Amino acid sequence: MKQMVLVVGCLMLSWAASAQQLTKKEEKNRSFAGAVARQQQYRVIYQMDSGDPRIIEKVLRNLNNALNDPRLKGKLQAELVAFSGGTDAFLKESKYKDALKQLVDKGVIVAQCANTLKERKIDREQIYDFIGLVPSGNGELILRQAEGWSVIKP
Amino acid sequence: MKQMVLVVGCLMLSWAASAQQLTKKEEKNRSFAGAVARQQQYRVIYQMDSGDPRIIEKVLRNLNNALNDPRLKGKLQAELVAFSGGTDAFLKESKYKDALKQLVDKGVIVAQCANTLKERKIDREQIYDFIGLVPSGNGELILRQAEGWSVIKP
Amino acid sequence: MKQMVLVVGCLMLSWAASAQQLTKKEEKNRSFAGAVARQQQYRVIYQMDSGDPRIIEKVLRNLNNALNDPRLKGKLQAELVAFSGGTDAFLKESKYKDALKQLVDKGVIVAQCANTLKERKIDREQIYDFIGLVPSGNGELILRQAEGWSVIKP
Repeated sequence: MKQMVLVVGCLMLSWAASAQQLTKKEEKNRSFAGAVARQQQYRVIYQMDSGDPRIIEKVLRNLNNALNDPRLKGKLQAELVAFSGGTDAFLKESKYKDALKQLVDKGVIVAQCANTLKERKIDREQIYDFIGLVPSGNGELILRQAEGWSVIKP
Repeated sequence: MKQMVLVVGCLMLSWAASAQQLTKKEEKNRSFAGAVARQQQYRVIYQMDSGDPRIIEKVLRNLNNALNDPRLKGKLQAELVAFSGGTDAFLKESKYKDALKQLVDKGVIVAQCANTLKERKIDREQIYDFIGLVPSGNGELILRQAEGWSVIKP
Repeated sequence: MKQMVLVVGCLMLSWAASAQQLTKKEEKNRSFAGAVARQQQYRVIYQMDSGDPRIIEKVLRNLNNALNDPRLKGKLQAELVAFSGGTDAFLKESKYKDALKQLVDKGVIVAQCANTLKERKIDREQIYDFIGLVPSGNGELILRQAEGWSVIKP
């Protein structure tokens, strides 16, 4: 019994010591749990402008994480725009067909920059048939932000 | 004649099969043609913070693509702010003098972060004479976004 | 005396020649000194999503530069959110403990994406005790932008 008290006492002391390591500001920061969703709807456009497969996969993972965030679930209109190297993800030989189709099926707008196609001499037939086309990816980012959309570059 | 009918029939079938591959959501996505410009004016600030020539050239290409987007043509006030490694583009020995002069001539604000000059011990005389100077590139990005400008990091 | 006049004359001529090199638009651009802070408060969220030490250190440097920008001094509420590779900066074995504590002490919110912890099988005990936790870093970026915060990805 005495030993039990001793052990519990030690644990409490060590806990107190550990807690003491945090200042009030640090305690307050530790308890931060994120911004609160007060709007009925949110809108975001993702910028995919690198052909690095790690970045392409990060974009897809990030976008799905946003769609699944409990604060945004069912409230998020998303768009994915590819330009520059990001166009690689839309080429018919890419390995991202299923992931992209799933996004479209979830209501995400998936669009390609027409400018990049022209610059890289890529025909529309070379990218997946279900992809939309915008005059320029940069123009799209500007217009969306002006409409109040958030923008994320993973 | 019979052969002709056969060929046309085959083509129609193959076209129908191909069309059938797209779901309604995919058809709708394919027909997406970009956000619509409803405002009289748009404003954007470009972040150039890498010394990698591929990134510097991407910034310049992206910015020009935005200026030339048919939806934004003649409606876009743009600013280009360099900090961190992006400063390299403004050094007098860089190869971007003409491209930068052309931007200024088109009315684009082209500015350098004074903080970076101090951190990297670069004198204002070492960058092109026509470049503007802002206290910090990061402060500039924050102020512009607060004023409603879009921001793009290529 | 004659020599003196000659030297001064030459200097003036060379100054005039140098000044003449700038067009009116270039002169105007050179005199640009940055956006003006008219609001009483500004808010920014920094995206730290790379484990590259050069990027982590750039984020910390950029954030501090923003806090110290004379236009924003004492007016800036900032948040730093880590996800993906950026989580490395918060691991207890990282070298950024002091820099992060200083940010918290200055009132910056410093938060980790819970999603990344789950994906990378990292326990909350493995990151610094003073770090806050948000459901997803991407959701946090979207919510903050919707609330009018600026976002910066260094």
